[in-house]
Amino acid sequence: MSRWPLPEPMKCALDQARAGESAGEVPIGAVVVKDGVVIAAAHNAPRTRSDPTAHAEVLAIRAAAQALGNERLDGCELWVTLEPCAMCAGAISHARIARLYYAAPDPKGGAVDHGARVFQHEQCLHAPEVYAGMGEDEAAELLRGFFKARR
Amino acid sequence: MSRWPLPEPMKCALDQARAGESAGEVPIGAVVVKDGVVIAAAHNAPRTRSDPTAHAEVLAIRAAAQALGNERLDGCELWVTLEPCAMCAGAISHARIARLYYAAPDPKGGAVDHGARVFQHEQCLHAPEVYAGMGEDEAAELLRGFFKARR
Repeated sequence: MSRWPLPEPMKCALDQARAGESAGEVPIGAVVVKDGVVIAAAHNAPRTRSDPTAHAEVLAIRAAAQALGNERLDGCELWVTLEPCAMCAGAISHARIARLYYAAPDPKGGAVDHGARVFQHEQCLHAPEVYAGMGEDEAAELLRGFFKARR
Repeated sequence: MSRWPLPEPMKCALDQARAGESAGEVPIGAVVVKDGVVIAAAHNAPRTRSDPTAHAEVLAIRAAAQALGNERLDGCELWVTLEPCAMCAGAISHARIARLYYAAPDPKGGAVDHGARVFQHEQCLHAPEVYAGMGEDEAAELLRGFFKARR
């Protein structure tokens, strides 16, 4: 079976996830795209940074906001290898991300299509369009390999 | 009517909120307490920092984790002047904050006792004890004054 090739931003997010694994972090990667160009990329780094908020999405959003000199990333896309948690979904909303693409679902910790479903409450002042599944196999395999090696 | 005096950490969080207002930010303040000592304090700063994640809680948690050299703030308390949003509730959970004290409820943006209720899903791996209401009048008056002045 042949498949459509993955879009470049998701390939880039997967590369970030691999870089995270090399750094001893859970392999999750994210990029922010503006007008078709990746303007920020990051991987999970809470251990190496001693920062519980250093998830790939938060780091990519912070870097993109710094690059643009604006707390709002209007019109930007976030591509990430795993369904965001509540913290990251909240950050996505505050940043006014227009479109969210995530690869693998996360029934145990996700808060977009599981659990808190952060975007589905009136208290959420901005919800992005959400597209899930592109790169799911690659993203999930990275996570399985990581946790298997540590068992 | 006489009232019990506010606990020192909430007074300190309110001072942070006032400092935020002086800086042109929404007046919300937070402190992290370990063994009865304030180890980090911050106010909202998304505009001045061009960082959509720069809520008082996130900044205080990040500073405390840096100070301790550990992504987990086991046994620590977070005191904040407003009910945390989904992003901040998620950060509180990731940081393993033991006890959360918030002053004013936030029906429009809160995610602890409103909306996403982040701590009330099985996807939330750690939930703090939550105590609400101490300092509510002071915290709410600060916010009312801020928004009234900008209308």
